[in-house]
Amino acid sequence: MEPNNACTMHSHCIEMSMEVHQVVPPPHKSTLQKLQGRLKETFFPDDPLRQFKGQPLKRKLILGAQYVFPILQWGPKYNLKLFKSDLVSGLTIASLAIPQGISYAKLASLPPIVGLYSSFVPPLVYAVLGSSKDLAVGPVSIASLVMGSMLRQEVSPTADPILFLQLAFTSTLFAGLFQASLGILRLGFIIDFLSKAILIGFMAGAAIIVSLQQLKSLLGITHFTNQMGLIPVMTSVFHNIHESIKKPKLFWVSAGAPLMSVIISTLLVFAIKAQNHGISAIGKLQQGINPPSWNMLLFHGSHLGLVMKTGLITGILSLTEGIAVGRTFAALKNYKVDGNKEMMAIGFMNVVGSFTSCYVTTGAFSRSAVNNNAGAKTAVSNVVMSVTVMVTLLFLMPLFQYTPNVVLGAIIVTAVIGLIDLPAACNIWKIDKFDFVVMLTAFLGVLFISVQGGLALAVGLSTFKILLQITRPKTVMLGKIPGTDIYRNLDQYKEAVRIPGFLILSIEAPINFANITYLNERTLRWIEEEEEDNIKEQLSLRFLVLEMSAVSAVDTSGISLFKELKATLEKKGVELVLVNPLAEVIEKLKKADEANDFIRADNLFLTVGEAVASLSSAMKGQSSTITEGTHTIVSHN
Amino acid sequence: MEPNNACTMHSHCIEMSMEVHQVVPPPHKSTLQKLQGRLKETFFPDDPLRQFKGQPLKRKLILGAQYVFPILQWGPKYNLKLFKSDLVSGLTIASLAIPQGISYAKLASLPPIVGLYSSFVPPLVYAVLGSSKDLAVGPVSIASLVMGSMLRQEVSPTADPILFLQLAFTSTLFAGLFQASLGILRLGFIIDFLSKAILIGFMAGAAIIVSLQQLKSLLGITHFTNQMGLIPVMTSVFHNIHESIKKPKLFWVSAGAPLMSVIISTLLVFAIKAQNHGISAIGKLQQGINPPSWNMLLFHGSHLGLVMKTGLITGILSLTEGIAVGRTFAALKNYKVDGNKEMMAIGFMNVVGSFTSCYVTTGAFSRSAVNNNAGAKTAVSNVVMSVTVMVTLLFLMPLFQYTPNVVLGAIIVTAVIGLIDLPAACNIWKIDKFDFVVMLTAFLGVLFISVQGGLALAVGLSTFKILLQITRPKTVMLGKIPGTDIYRNLDQYKEAVRIPGFLILSIEAPINFANITYLNERTLRWIEEEEEDNIKEQLSLRFLVLEMSAVSAVDTSGISLFKELKATLEKKGVELVLVNPLAEVIEKLKKADEANDFIRADNLFLTVGEAVASLSSAMKGQSSTITEGTHTIVSHN
Repeated sequence: MEPNNACTMHSHCIEMSMEVHQVVPPPHKSTLQKLQGRLKETFFPDDPLRQFKGQPLKRKLILGAQYVFPILQWGPKYNLKLFKSDLVSGLTIASLAIPQGISYAKLASLPPIVGLYSSFVPPLVYAVLGSSKDLAVGPVSIASLVMGSMLRQEVSPTADPILFLQLAFTSTLFAGLFQASLGILRLGFIIDFLSKAILIGFMAGAAIIVSLQQLKSLLGITHFTNQMGLIPVMTSVFHNIHESIKKPKLFWVSAGAPLMSVIISTLLVFAIKAQNHGISAIGKLQQGINPPSWNMLLFHGSHLGLVMKTGLITGILSLTEGIAVGRTFAALKNYKVDGNKEMMAIGFMNVVGSFTSCYVTTGAFSRSAVNNNAGAKTAVSNVVMSVTVMVTLLFLMPLFQYTPNVVLGAIIVTAVIGLIDLPAACNIWKIDKFDFVVMLTAFLGVLFISVQGGLALAVGLSTFKILLQITRPKTVMLGKIPGTDIYRNLDQYKEAVRIPGFLILSIEAPINFANITYLNERTLRWIEEEEEDNIKEQLSLRFLVLEMSAVSAVDTSGISLFKELKATLEKKGVELVLVNPLAEVIEKLKKADEANDFIRADNLFLTVGEAVASLSSAMKGQSSTITEGTHTIVSHN
Repeated sequence: MEPNNACTMHSHCIEMSMEVHQVVPPPHKSTLQKLQGRLKETFFPDDPLRQFKGQPLKRKLILGAQYVFPILQWGPKYNLKLFKSDLVSGLTIASLAIPQGISYAKLASLPPIVGLYSSFVPPLVYAVLGSSKDLAVGPVSIASLVMGSMLRQEVSPTADPILFLQLAFTSTLFAGLFQASLGILRLGFIIDFLSKAILIGFMAGAAIIVSLQQLKSLLGITHFTNQMGLIPVMTSVFHNIHESIKKPKLFWVSAGAPLMSVIISTLLVFAIKAQNHGISAIGKLQQGINPPSWNMLLFHGSHLGLVMKTGLITGILSLTEGIAVGRTFAALKNYKVDGNKEMMAIGFMNVVGSFTSCYVTTGAFSRSAVNNNAGAKTAVSNVVMSVTVMVTLLFLMPLFQYTPNVVLGAIIVTAVIGLIDLPAACNIWKIDKFDFVVMLTAFLGVLFISVQGGLALAVGLSTFKILLQITRPKTVMLGKIPGTDIYRNLDQYKEAVRIPGFLILSIEAPINFANITYLNERTLRWIEEEEEDNIKEQLSLRFLVLEMSAVSAVDTSGISLFKELKATLEKKGVELVLVNPLAEVIEKLKKADEANDFIRADNLFLTVGEAVASLSSAMKGQSSTITEGTHTIVSHN
């Protein structure tokens, strides 16, 4: 027998070795089993309890303790060689942490010392609870600037510094509680909705706002708006520009080595007594480690709503940064971090922080990169950093008295300008125009509306896109790739040919209430167009073949679509044929199909090839009296 | 050569006629072309301008006029035979429209005459603009009860009847404007989000509320709450029950023929002068057709928000009913209604209605069913009904003076009890448990919260389900169905076998920001589980084959997933192979793939069968020095 490679569009070829394979429903599962399966995939996709299976009780307890405190996992194996690496990297990140802590606290309109407090306690908590080996913990620029800008909407940090500090600590508590509960409730997927595109746009917008705000220190403008948002900031800048042009103090500072800048400038200020010549410095700082702050938490009063909103937004932003950084380095070094566990660790760290005079902290990208480059092996590098900061807090604070504010402004600007990622933006434009629009929305929203507003708009837009993909699923006409039994998109595969009498459509989305109207209309339009073509060629449409491999789910509305389509098609003399419905779909079709309309051998096939072969053989059989003969003739065409 | 039917799991069979087909990207389209295509599918899936293509200008103008006024399409062909059918059906629905109009107006706490006004003007407007042949237009129970209950929240219809009427007309205007703009902006798909399941639950809940409220007339309770919601209604009933039990007037009325009930009871009341014995009747009604009401529209004052909300909700509910009824009968009689055009017609009808003392109207299900049964052929039956109502308004109003309220209450209860569709609810339970939960949410929400609250909860829940399907897409392990080249779900097809060295996964959703974290984790878990199995069998995993036929789209995050997966897999010595990426996916992969990591002949295949055959042949080739020989030996296994 010859292979059917010669088979063309007009030969109505039928394969002789035609063996039709049945579509079978999946094995029966009870509703409860299905619910369990669904819940597991939704909330426990990483199957965290797998390691406990089949272990004796004692081992289970040890594993449980190690699950809660990852330090118990790597601690016992810790050795001097690892410590040497961690010591070097810990000291390195401490040299970054001290100037950054002071600067970011300033960014959040908090006293500089709070930035140092926040680099002391949280890293210790994380070292015990965290599962990443590379994350360096501390305050970060984005969360700092968002917290500052949101709290300043209601309270002035200069007019009422105590209240401002109270609100900051309370926001930190709410951020921590929110983060921890996301982890405990295993709802970590919520942070996935802040997509890469949104974050790129958001960070660029935030960087511009912050840089403009820092013009205050850099240009020496003193009357500056406390509101975020480009227009007020720009107005303020232009309003003050003529006076600053007269006495520009410092426009640009290299911030490659923040600590060096701080040391050198502090020494300079001290030596030439520049604070007497109009250069403002930090001023006297309190000595000693973190004082308790649980008595400063405010759960009543008119600012509670703002504090909760600030906690929510800074919480989700810092969590996104921390988790993303943790995942990045874990992938780089080929180990795993558990997202939900990390959320609990970061959340708990912030709750403890809010009790000990710290504001929102997370795994910082720049600091973790330095940590990794300096050779960090475990979370001990966080401990080394923390101890270094403690020593600073206890003994070195008087040295910072002369650090000029302008250097801190420069450190901030350098940090945030680095957040603008133009190559990534170009790449997004190249690959996906809609993602670019989302990015632009986040960027412009943050610039011209507000931090929350911009983020909400961008998240809403990207969610809308997902819904639109469901509401308007693609339907694609398939054709046969000559010489094969493969059916593919006619638009994509130019060599594919249509089979006369057949309209083969592939539906590429779950079928549900949101798209049945569209699918019904669109399918009828396909049929009308096909019929118009057929009139020209004097053919008639006999079969509508729906390739269902990409229909991952149906609901009751989806089932009704099939019934409706079938009824409409019957009036046109066209038969509805389903190909490869997936487990869930075939199961529901079967349940709904009392009249046995769908689960029949002649309208349900495993592949398009088998459907076309079997149906055109049956069609031939009808139109010819000598059925067997027809088969043979056709196959030898 | 033997066919490869004997090929089993352990034979590493390779087909000799192995021809590998290339995956090709779709033909190039500019961003603008893609945008046009996407916009067309989103807003013009029915391609309404298709009929205009290639027509001369004069014909285009005629088609355009017919598009706006469908009456121009069927009007010229109208004849006496059609009119006879329409006359009979028009008189039949008028006999229903009069008692229903009076009753539903009462349901909305409006004067009974407004119900008749609403059966006069809107049907005339619809006859000119509407594209359905079977829709019978008038007030409907759901919109009436929702309007009444929402407006009563702020204004009492007994204490301030004029204001209440003004709010009702203004709500009707907003409903009409909202409906028409949905149609004009082609956003009709919004009503799809009120799924069948939601409507079944909602209608059952609403029916119970209304029936309980009508106990007022039926039991003769006079002190009754005006608030909707089960608890106040029940409290009110139990509060009044002891007094009503003492003097039960009428508990049950057959409402099979509403008009007969009205006529007989009116005659009875008139004959025995029952209104003097405690039976309340409608009382004197104003004679004459609709007075203008544009001077009664209120666009200021404290109730504007309520009026807009009421317009929105009654607008969307009545639109849903009207469109669903229109589509049902169109499908039954095999003609098409244009959803967006219908929305404009219904919207314009309500705008005109609000100027002429009508409240919200739409295509009513019960009335349209009667219309269809009575043999209606065109919208002329609406005109006949309208003229009959006009005659009633002009000459017969004094006759209704004695119609007892209790009969109207019975008509309402009969109508709304018919809305409870228990078989449909059972069917939903049988097919889809989640849809049942959505239905229950709508039902309980309407009963215990409020109309808007219940609907919003149910719509939110079903939208959340769609998002969850995207956030947690199914990944399924495929196996080869013996004797074929077909790869299917191992769970569903028990005879399918796994191929050693290959892990074949099918991803059943678009890949985007919302699910890349999950997919990454889930894929790694699949690999780990596979590796554990392999250790037992002393095999090693060589290839991860991702079957992408069901991945209808990717975004930039999705692209990054592939890069990340590839990097992770390389560390494990596993190669990533993609099968049949669809047009959009292959295009984006190509744009992002500067290093040519994905678009290579050895990791991109058109079918799983070809991928497995080609790769295992290459694998054999590597492990054996005599490559050609191996091929032959293996194929003869």
